Amino acid sequence: MGKILNLRLNFPIVGKSLFILAGALLANALVAILFNEPVKPFIISGSVAFSVGMLLYVLKNSGKEIESLTKKDASLIVSFSWIFFSLIGALPYIISDSIPGFVNALFESVSGFTTTGASILVDIEILPKSILFWRSFTHWIGGIGIIVLVIVIMPSLHIGSYNLFTFESSVQEKIQPKIKAVGHRLLLIYVLLTVAEIVLLLFGKMSFFESVCHSFGTVATGGFSPKNTSIINYSPYIQYVITLFMLLAGVNFVIHYYLFKRDFQKVKENEELRFYLSVVFIIGMILTFSLYFTMNKSFEESFREAFFQIISIITCTGFASADYLLWPSFAWMIIFLAMFLGGSTGSTAGGIKMARHLVLFKNVKRFFQQLQSPNAIINLKLNNKVVSDENNRTILSFIILYFIIFAVSSIFLVFLGNDGQTASSAVATCMAGIGPGIGTVGPVSNFAHLTDGSKMILSFLMLLGRLEIYTLLILFIPNFWRS
Amino acid sequence: MGKILNLRLNFPIVGKSLFILAGALLANALVAILFNEPVKPFIISGSVAFSVGMLLYVLKNSGKEIESLTKKDASLIVSFSWIFFSLIGALPYIISDSIPGFVNALFESVSGFTTTGASILVDIEILPKSILFWRSFTHWIGGIGIIVLVIVIMPSLHIGSYNLFTFESSVQEKIQPKIKAVGHRLLLIYVLLTVAEIVLLLFGKMSFFESVCHSFGTVATGGFSPKNTSIINYSPYIQYVITLFMLLAGVNFVIHYYLFKRDFQKVKENEELRFYLSVVFIIGMILTFSLYFTMNKSFEESFREAFFQIISIITCTGFASADYLLWPSFAWMIIFLAMFLGGSTGSTAGGIKMARHLVLFKNVKRFFQQLQSPNAIINLKLNNKVVSDENNRTILSFIILYFIIFAVSSIFLVFLGNDGQTASSAVATCMAGIGPGIGTVGPVSNFAHLTDGSKMILSFLMLLGRLEIYTLLILFIPNFWRS
Repeated sequence: MGKILNLRLNFPIVGKSLFILAGALLANALVAILFNEPVKPFIISGSVAFSVGMLLYVLKNSGKEIESLTKKDASLIVSFSWIFFSLIGALPYIISDSIPGFVNALFESVSGFTTTGASILVDIEILPKSILFWRSFTHWIGGIGIIVLVIVIMPSLHIGSYNLFTFESSVQEKIQPKIKAVGHRLLLIYVLLTVAEIVLLLFGKMSFFESVCHSFGTVATGGFSPKNTSIINYSPYIQYVITLFMLLAGVNFVIHYYLFKRDFQKVKENEELRFYLSVVFIIGMILTFSLYFTMNKSFEESFREAFFQIISIITCTGFASADYLLWPSFAWMIIFLAMFLGGSTGSTAGGIKMARHLVLFKNVKRFFQQLQSPNAIINLKLNNKVVSDENNRTILSFIILYFIIFAVSSIFLVFLGNDGQTASSAVATCMAGIGPGIGTVGPVSNFAHLTDGSKMILSFLMLLGRLEIYTLLILFIPNFWRS
Repeated sequence: MGKILNLRLNFPIVGKSLFILAGALLANALVAILFNEPVKPFIISGSVAFSVGMLLYVLKNSGKEIESLTKKDASLIVSFSWIFFSLIGALPYIISDSIPGFVNALFESVSGFTTTGASILVDIEILPKSILFWRSFTHWIGGIGIIVLVIVIMPSLHIGSYNLFTFESSVQEKIQPKIKAVGHRLLLIYVLLTVAEIVLLLFGKMSFFESVCHSFGTVATGGFSPKNTSIINYSPYIQYVITLFMLLAGVNFVIHYYLFKRDFQKVKENEELRFYLSVVFIIGMILTFSLYFTMNKSFEESFREAFFQIISIITCTGFASADYLLWPSFAWMIIFLAMFLGGSTGSTAGGIKMARHLVLFKNVKRFFQQLQSPNAIINLKLNNKVVSDENNRTILSFIILYFIIFAVSSIFLVFLGNDGQTASSAVATCMAGIGPGIGTVGPVSNFAHLTDGSKMILSFLMLLGRLEIYTLLILFIPNFWRS
């Protein structure tokens, strides 16, 4: 029994999380009723979620409770929650016959809950409204999930340097007893951002349904749109609103939390925020000028297209207001490289993320300083806190591991018959949770034509990227399962 | 005067090195006499080398001598030596009218001295023999230069972790007084390898001239061939001989040194050697099978083509016995990624190199071990020596810096009008000192059609890669020039 002891203690918590999923599916049934569409897919799926949840909950040893979570527990709970959510969340697509085949439905569901937004749908608009709502809803659920995971759970367990990126350690120690209070406040901020965007989109004469779906997709930096052409055919006003909210969703929610508490000093001091905004601004301007001078567009249009696309890519949202594959190759090469940036830590964005790049940048800087004065001891600081050697190593290892997985997976996808551009960009976009890639999986295309093998690998990569790689990867180390 | 004090002390050493170049050019004049070709290009260039050398030598302050080299001195001397060699080494191409234009001649010369082997020549075989000999000779000079630099100079100055890769520190301390003796023994090994290959190629009925040129190109892992089709039209025997010597040239010359001294224990214990041979074997076998099953070749031919090409790429030689662009895309994608491997440290190979990848691999391994047992202190070892945190950081920073330069330079080349594949592979192949790339700069093509801007950037990247990046890059830090 020793080997599955962990599971018996952890699965009840996974079970509890499935009750949330059941609730979400039942809420979606109400949407179906509203649009006069079949409720069956959601009622059945909701029941499955509830039953599986109960089953896992019942697994609990009599009396025994986890007193304090270990890192292993957290990895298990988080990984299995996302996997169960993805599996059960795929059921509505299958039951409603909206998406043919298990692999396709799972791909779409994983893409939803990981807030990726890569789709296998060729024609989105023919689907029932309630199914389109569910797609966007999975983004929204996944988005708040990742915020709670990265800001609340991981730092309190001292996993992977997250304490560096979120609250100050003094606050972190205070957090333990009031985890729920912080969680609730983050949820409130999340809801407020969503509502604010819905209202602003309604002002732009977008329908209520589309406003809600797009807001879910924006705030969660997901990227599923109920429209075949994403944001391309909407007015400039709407494109600007979505640009702004993508930018906000890519900000560390700890910053939003401080803004909410009117602690502007903390906001001003945050290095990652400044770095994030600077990178967006610089790349955005480079793209603006390159579109302005090569594509015969007005400056406003160049500016709008450039910033919409680059913010969409950097925050890993994946909405498109233009097909960047029609841009000069210089511009879409920048788009491709920007897929390795990622938004801020503690946001809903995916990818490597700004704080890690900032630490990397500081390492390179220190490297040269060290060459100049070999005997000086130069501390590496982030937000005025010293980054310990161990944390530093964890961050650099993460970046390197990220690229190794990228390279190996790209080879696999080429081996499965995809061309190099499609393969490497599909891997990059799925690992970072963006959505569109380059080659045959560009912003006005989709992932339908890939083989099942490729889709399964990409689904795995979406989960791997969303769960910050090692949360999921550690389960594959044989030693992990010895208790 | 304070600011150029360094130069006044260092330039005399650069001057001395130019006397060697003058000697080489005069020796090449003898080759011209032998083939009854004009000696003028070599006599003039040799005189220029000698005159510039004298000029720099005379710069010496009266009486003042450098007592012990600092890191700054080494960077200056090494960088300027390679730059002067490249500039003066380009003169024979220009004076003989073999290569039109300064940028082209410089590209070819830099490519020679950095042992890269990327060429701008469209038709190689119409050139005078003495010029073809000079091309290969520049490889050979550059090759021994890099061995002395990495094995003797850098470790004795404790630059960039080289002490880790070469002799044991006990030997290093002994080296200081007998730097010349070690240097001479390395030169002897280098000459013996060259002679051995010449003899074996002569056995295969290759002409004496071609044998010498190809041996120069192999032992220096350069890649210039006096033939338009490189090694493609030679017999299997000759291809196997060159494969073997490329493999040997990619081995740390410290290993050859130990073999020479019959200290087999040291050879057996060397982790980088095992790693290098394992990587070559594994990738070679994957390629063999992928050619065997997809290309309708015999197993022997698949094996020979696969191992020739992968060893040529990993050791950064750049000879071709087949056009890998005709291989299935899976196979040439591996070739592209293999461009980031590089041979062993202390060999004539370029690139990131095996020891660094090994350290990277051990970091990733430790990363997972640390996740398992968060409180354990796990030392990172290479060849049974503990890698200090600082050395480890230097190595990881190098790898990261390498990829940053790769990405930024690729964007530049795309900006200058090259397509993505050509741009990124040209950068990768030049930084690593390989030669052929992918796209329009494949193994049966050349770099002639690129713009002058692209050629200048690539020339700079060849130097940057050959001088292990920071030796050259540090000269661009304004602080460096303050004494």
